[in-house]
Amino acid sequence: MTVTIPKGFVANGIACGIKASGAPDLTLVASESGEPMLAVAVFTQNLAAAAPVKVSKRHLQSTGNRAVAVVLNSGNANAANGEKGMRDAEAMCAAIGEQLGISLELVLVCSTGLIGIPLDVAPIQRGAAELTAGLEANEAGAVRAARAIMTTDTVPKTASFTGTGYSIGSIAKGAAMLAPNMATMLSVITTDAKIDADLAQYLLREAVEHSFNRLVIDGCTSTNDTVILLCSGAGEGGSPDEFREGLISVCNSLADQMAMDAEGAHKLVRLSVAGAASDQDALVLAKKAAGSQLVQCSFYGSDPYWGRLASEFGTAGVDFDLDQLEVSYQGIKVASGGVAADHDAEKLKVAMDKREILVTCKVGKGPGSATVTTTDLSPEYIAENMRTS
Amino acid sequence: MTVTIPKGFVANGIACGIKASGAPDLTLVASESGEPMLAVAVFTQNLAAAAPVKVSKRHLQSTGNRAVAVVLNSGNANAANGEKGMRDAEAMCAAIGEQLGISLELVLVCSTGLIGIPLDVAPIQRGAAELTAGLEANEAGAVRAARAIMTTDTVPKTASFTGTGYSIGSIAKGAAMLAPNMATMLSVITTDAKIDADLAQYLLREAVEHSFNRLVIDGCTSTNDTVILLCSGAGEGGSPDEFREGLISVCNSLADQMAMDAEGAHKLVRLSVAGAASDQDALVLAKKAAGSQLVQCSFYGSDPYWGRLASEFGTAGVDFDLDQLEVSYQGIKVASGGVAADHDAEKLKVAMDKREILVTCKVGKGPGSATVTTTDLSPEYIAENMRTS
Repeated sequence: MTVTIPKGFVANGIACGIKASGAPDLTLVASESGEPMLAVAVFTQNLAAAAPVKVSKRHLQSTGNRAVAVVLNSGNANAANGEKGMRDAEAMCAAIGEQLGISLELVLVCSTGLIGIPLDVAPIQRGAAELTAGLEANEAGAVRAARAIMTTDTVPKTASFTGTGYSIGSIAKGAAMLAPNMATMLSVITTDAKIDADLAQYLLREAVEHSFNRLVIDGCTSTNDTVILLCSGAGEGGSPDEFREGLISVCNSLADQMAMDAEGAHKLVRLSVAGAASDQDALVLAKKAAGSQLVQCSFYGSDPYWGRLASEFGTAGVDFDLDQLEVSYQGIKVASGGVAADHDAEKLKVAMDKREILVTCKVGKGPGSATVTTTDLSPEYIAENMRTS
Repeated sequence: MTVTIPKGFVANGIACGIKASGAPDLTLVASESGEPMLAVAVFTQNLAAAAPVKVSKRHLQSTGNRAVAVVLNSGNANAANGEKGMRDAEAMCAAIGEQLGISLELVLVCSTGLIGIPLDVAPIQRGAAELTAGLEANEAGAVRAARAIMTTDTVPKTASFTGTGYSIGSIAKGAAMLAPNMATMLSVITTDAKIDADLAQYLLREAVEHSFNRLVIDGCTSTNDTVILLCSGAGEGGSPDEFREGLISVCNSLADQMAMDAEGAHKLVRLSVAGAASDQDALVLAKKAAGSQLVQCSFYGSDPYWGRLASEFGTAGVDFDLDQLEVSYQGIKVASGGVAADHDAEKLKVAMDKREILVTCKVGKGPGSATVTTTDLSPEYIAENMRTS
């Protein structure tokens, strides 16, 4: 279940001293042969993107999407640090490049932690030798890699897929939307599938859209969100259709793990909208409702308050006809034709008392549908995010 | 400080039995003479608008903006109740019309409470006689009126303005954005200024835009939000410039009272953005930051985490250059040129420990600026909104 399952990859994670706690905070995923391989990525759209995002983008551009390694630190986002932040992100790449005997442009970089706190790059520079010396092509190395990118995550997140003649592996850390004060959604996905650059970029973007981008917690987009796909090409196959499905399944598994591990979350909620004019309209409606503080409060209370969903749909910015609304919680219909529907309240109460809740909404007779994943809004979420220190 | 300060108005509020608690729940504000007067209104933009919103709009249209009375109930929003909801809203108007000897179309109606619960209109019909019999042109009547529209509000909200030869009075209840599960922002404003219909409508819309619409709590727009301005014309003046200022000051006072009385709110925060390309851009940036769960969590923790503001500005959908960002909390600069600025942390800590917090952000050298009001996000907000019953 790790980044070292596909052929051609090594990984490691160490505690270099960024985190005051002494917990692991520096990860490397690299090409086993030391040769550059295909690398594609999807980055945050935030205009205040962090220095590592800018540096990784620049490196991919100048190498024509080639990379040997990805270095990731937790404990500091290196965001809103101005020119010093850019120099520090480059210095992280240089420290790894020196150890691996490659140009710093062949190293990509990710950071996660607090925004606006200058990064002390010295511990990373000092740790680079230990980090590269410990690189392993086995499960142990990959697990250390997964652990050292954790911030408020309570468990490491990994997922894999076995294709015909190749495989896909991955590590990730909690989504920005989950415990975003100290967290950013980062993921490194590896594969030995034989796949070309344009298709890899296209399929990664599509997989992110259908997984991480349908995880709606607080609607905030981090300065650091990054998903990188490294392709060693060392396997025997890689049919586009199968690879597409495999990549989406890996990303969906990681997204679900993020939701399940969200700080303060007691519920994992699948909110589906069907009957919209288009899939896009359905997605807009589903995201508006799922992202509502009030709707999330009702999930926390296990309260099937469908009127709040109706109110959110009415302000989503797309066409909505209340008279056609039908809502079910856990398969029990609570509203039909835009008004309350008779139902067994006791049965519903029992059904709502679950960790995973299914909310299905029909908004009309159109062909559009979409499902998003969200959580409840709890006092623990506030406790997690009320102070940076 | 009430709706009966201007000449020509009477008001009353009673407990008719909608609320199980027996608290006051039915209000009437009416023309003292019983003659129709000019009435203009601003309603929610929610596509799932409640029946009373639709009925009031229809009445204003058919009478050419004339009304004798506004009836308001608390304890049930009469929203998402389908055709029955429409009949019930009309029945409320009919019950008052019958008592006052006027057409039901000369009565406007507002409701506030839970969505999707059928309204029992019988208590309102039974209470109509007591409600109209108790109408008074004095402070006592107006205070009863203000009390009977309260839901989760802890104090009645009123504001007034004394103009040259006329006055403005008002009552309001807590904003939808504050304790929205059971609440909607409702306000009835009265004046005896001599002012024509088009100008009154224009100025009311402008005043709402500059007050209630700059109160950002959870970004939710209620199904029932309504502001009605009744103009008796019984005064001696009404210069547009002075009336405009007076109306804005009344609405701002009500908005501030709503924020101060927000369920679960410990902080009232003024968030200003200056230096944007336009006032509109500044407003978009200010609303994005103020409406962020994460930013509101930091307010709850009295934490001057400006990095979170930067991240929200970066995803507001308008141009934003992090390198130009300057942020001050309580006048103490914490960021400049997009990076952390040295400051006296102890002094800032003391300054943040206030009920009212001022956050000023400069995003560039443009002429655009805007200020919004918000609150913190607290565990009490969640407790308020986690269950409908």
